[in-house]
Amino acid sequence: MPELRQNIITRDWVIIASERAKRPDQFIREKKTVARPSFESTCPFCPGNESRTTPERWRMGTPEKWELRVVANLYPALAEEGEKKRNINGIYRSLSAVGFHDVIIEHPDHSSTVALYSTEAMNNLIAAYVRRYREIEEDERIESIVIFRNHGEGAGTSLIHPHSQVVATPVVPFPVRSRIDIARQYFDDQGECIFCVTLNDEIQSGERIIAETEHFIAFIPYAALSPFHIWIFPKKHSPSFGCLTESEATGLGSILQNVLRKLSTGLNDPDYNFTIRSIPVRESGKEYFHWYLAVVPRIAVAAGFELGSGMYVSTAIPEESAAFLRNIK
Amino acid sequence: MPELRQNIITRDWVIIASERAKRPDQFIREKKTVARPSFESTCPFCPGNESRTTPERWRMGTPEKWELRVVANLYPALAEEGEKKRNINGIYRSLSAVGFHDVIIEHPDHSSTVALYSTEAMNNLIAAYVRRYREIEEDERIESIVIFRNHGEGAGTSLIHPHSQVVATPVVPFPVRSRIDIARQYFDDQGECIFCVTLNDEIQSGERIIAETEHFIAFIPYAALSPFHIWIFPKKHSPSFGCLTESEATGLGSILQNVLRKLSTGLNDPDYNFTIRSIPVRESGKEYFHWYLAVVPRIAVAAGFELGSGMYVSTAIPEESAAFLRNIK
Repeated sequence: MPELRQNIITRDWVIIASERAKRPDQFIREKKTVARPSFESTCPFCPGNESRTTPERWRMGTPEKWELRVVANLYPALAEEGEKKRNINGIYRSLSAVGFHDVIIEHPDHSSTVALYSTEAMNNLIAAYVRRYREIEEDERIESIVIFRNHGEGAGTSLIHPHSQVVATPVVPFPVRSRIDIARQYFDDQGECIFCVTLNDEIQSGERIIAETEHFIAFIPYAALSPFHIWIFPKKHSPSFGCLTESEATGLGSILQNVLRKLSTGLNDPDYNFTIRSIPVRESGKEYFHWYLAVVPRIAVAAGFELGSGMYVSTAIPEESAAFLRNIK
Repeated sequence: MPELRQNIITRDWVIIASERAKRPDQFIREKKTVARPSFESTCPFCPGNESRTTPERWRMGTPEKWELRVVANLYPALAEEGEKKRNINGIYRSLSAVGFHDVIIEHPDHSSTVALYSTEAMNNLIAAYVRRYREIEEDERIESIVIFRNHGEGAGTSLIHPHSQVVATPVVPFPVRSRIDIARQYFDDQGECIFCVTLNDEIQSGERIIAETEHFIAFIPYAALSPFHIWIFPKKHSPSFGCLTESEATGLGSILQNVLRKLSTGLNDPDYNFTIRSIPVRESGKEYFHWYLAVVPRIAVAAGFELGSGMYVSTAIPEESAAFLRNIK
């Protein structure tokens, strides 16, 4: 009989289709990754084409040779300049879409990707996330900052050159608010952080753990909505990503790269998104939330059932997927 | 400056990218629809192949010649037989996935689709939705019934032959619960149904209305998450789809077909999903919810921004999209 599992953190239910479940190796991507050149003259993110992006906010590396660049998106979804103005007319609520929509050009090499970076490039990436998060946090118009990265066409990438995005909005997006509310309610009821409870239970059981380090665990949630959905939790309770210490940042780079390498080796370079979920910036002192990083491989295409019903069906057993990735060196 | 709009019913925010907005006619689908045969010998839903589906629950038409058939999905996501058993082990919550996953084979003609049906076939379809909803509602294990239809590959269809699906679950899916909570809170605060308020405001303003009949309105929500997202609201306040009267059912068929014809004519047969959202079956007496039907054309592919940030960006202005469809005969 298939099993419905509830994710206590998101409250989503997923049908684990145990009778139709596939073995982990049946999720290996068939398509071969095409070899790409290290430099592409038409790519706006390649070295030498710096004039084709918006003006650089800052870079890592040297004035002559950058290792990482931060720029505004050329077609930003939000406008940087302007006042945050609400307009409420009965049930119609709007707001000027002020905020930030940044691109972090992660590496000069057109063909590289996170799983392949040197330790130094990995440290640069996480340090850039933290620095940009803290800078944007200072802007009083901003309520929420989301950092994310898309790998591969199936994950919505239009430009191949390795890059991440930072979106800062003047309101808290509903899915973010929804998770905060769930966590707050659990804290009010139980006096504990729901993420800390999950973290401890997962470490104790161990069956869904993929990797564990001094500061972090990576695991597949008990009610993963899709195959090989992975969460990376910091062990230290901390609501805001902006509070990451330097040694935690290094640790995050290391476990994230480890997880992405396991995915790439084990499942033949699947497309993925990853996102850093942090508490809204004006609530960073609140104790009930716990920042985390979610990696969502785009292995199973959302089919008619999910699109129509709003319920998820997964043909992967979380414990089996976790064991598969755990055993990949 | 782009504008953030909030959908008061879902609480989602969408960025209406007014500076990059496209004209409605720029959303016309380029691909031509391939002509399909009326009968396909390999299709399990075509007349003559009845033995290739699960046993028929019931049909419309005559014993010799069916007009519509209701069967269980050959690969159901939920098991019909079995006890509803909860298993709570600390934070891990699961439930036997008992329920229904039905297929409504809408029409004998392999190549037909809702926009092309005769009035009789349209009435059959809505009557079948209502009958199956009421039958399933009797099963005490069931908490929620979702009826949906996927049109085209981009909407997740694997079988071309025209069909709808009914999914009945032993729990209330989180997105359904979330909307109910929002509506209940509005009712508690304001003493009014949030859907009735929206309905009246939309009729009064008129600028987002696509069609209006005795019993229904079809409109593009003020904060439509994606281009040409359409809601059909019954004018009469009613929480449950199961309470539809016969004349309302005819009216629903008529306005739904009108909307789908406008989409097909105006935008060159785009892929779409439609879903009927009703109150959970054990709460059908509650006054704060209002059933409705949502049509979501799959015109804009969710790109990296949406996947990563959880925020939506739409390049269509709802008022312009509505005027465009309103003017199509």
